[in-house]
Amino acid sequence: MANLETLDVYLSAHSFPEEELRDKVTVVIDVLRATSTIVTALQNGAKEIVPVEDMGEASRIAQSVDSDNILLCGERDGIKIDGYDLGNSPLEYTNEMVGGKTLIFNTTNGTQAIKKAVGSSALYIASFLNLSAVVDILRKEEKDIVLICAGWRGRLALEDLILAGNIVYNMCDGKLVPEARDGAKVAFGLYEKYKGDVASVIHSSNHAVRLKGLEVENDIDYCSQKDTCSLVPVLNKGIITR
Amino acid sequence: MANLETLDVYLSAHSFPEEELRDKVTVVIDVLRATSTIVTALQNGAKEIVPVEDMGEASRIAQSVDSDNILLCGERDGIKIDGYDLGNSPLEYTNEMVGGKTLIFNTTNGTQAIKKAVGSSALYIASFLNLSAVVDILRKEEKDIVLICAGWRGRLALEDLILAGNIVYNMCDGKLVPEARDGAKVAFGLYEKYKGDVASVIHSSNHAVRLKGLEVENDIDYCSQKDTCSLVPVLNKGIITR
Repeated sequence: MANLETLDVYLSAHSFPEEELRDKVTVVIDVLRATSTIVTALQNGAKEIVPVEDMGEASRIAQSVDSDNILLCGERDGIKIDGYDLGNSPLEYTNEMVGGKTLIFNTTNGTQAIKKAVGSSALYIASFLNLSAVVDILRKEEKDIVLICAGWRGRLALEDLILAGNIVYNMCDGKLVPEARDGAKVAFGLYEKYKGDVASVIHSSNHAVRLKGLEVENDIDYCSQKDTCSLVPVLNKGIITR
Repeated sequence: MANLETLDVYLSAHSFPEEELRDKVTVVIDVLRATSTIVTALQNGAKEIVPVEDMGEASRIAQSVDSDNILLCGERDGIKIDGYDLGNSPLEYTNEMVGGKTLIFNTTNGTQAIKKAVGSSALYIASFLNLSAVVDILRKEEKDIVLICAGWRGRLALEDLILAGNIVYNMCDGKLVPEARDGAKVAFGLYEKYKGDVASVIHSSNHAVRLKGLEVENDIDYCSQKDTCSLVPVLNKGIITR
């Protein structure tokens, strides 16, 4: 790493005040499923993604733009919002469905973490799918870096923390650096312990167990794959593009 | 463990809504230094401890009781509050100082976690000092158990999570049980990784580094000791006793 100042991991979207992210580089992580879905949508040709905090904001934006090229996407508690075009399963975000479209994206935890981090100096979107591409970008950063786990309603989500740990581990070439703060140490230690068995840790996580009740097991397998794509979505003026 | 339902660890006082603790057994952890200080004060003969959330509440309570037997105790950002009798260093809480007294106790993170958990079905106070005594009590519980790390301003504190992990590890005899939720898995994994070297992990934690600026290194050594006492403080009607 270049001249990194500090490297930290925040464990949920509730665990920090927004102003703390000013002048920091942030990476938002919501493995199951928001950030995996964002990466997939852009990979499959979506033009851009507008993260919104609630359904009211989603409707206002949808009404203000050309409706032929827009899709309303998102979930509450894992279930597609009534009247929306797409839910939060990355497998729905095919090229046929999203190619060239603007997606208005509204989820329980992921987009709320993104909205809370809009004041960062740069904001990237990470998933297992684009892990190495994210690490490559972060290695060049010289600022404070914070990996934000979206978590679940303020609590930590194991799958998010494992990915954060994997990013920290790869950035540091497997050896914890002095720039790592408490959160980064915890994520690193967790990844180091479970690194031989990441997919089964994700499958046993509380969130995966909740999702299994919704019969989206294929999503969990899909979101556990590493490095299936090399793009890193970035937020600019409230809009996520490749 | 008897017929434990679930075992979880919350990583900061900000990471859960209060109503979630109803009908659960909670254990509050603030290694540096609130819960270490509470254990020490009761060990050294304090009659009872009244946790308060802010200075206004502290003053109101202090005015309503016999002032000869009362001490105002606490800190903000690690420094004794102006006009208070004692700060938050456990080494100040000697028998000469606290024997027979009621302590009004007001700290940055620890007492806020306690106040947030007052609706639990039982609330215990844990530190490394009384680790085994806490584990003994929890082994007999049949309810959901939540270990609450006070953390630091909403973020995790490594030393709290290590103690939570140590409690989980000892409760489970070193083998993670199916009742463990994501937070308990993280704490367990962290403790397992660092268990040979807990004191130095605590010394390197962000909180310890902050405290070192205040010249309280002896506190950190003191709070890192395991099983120096066998009492478990318990909260009852807003008051902590042995």
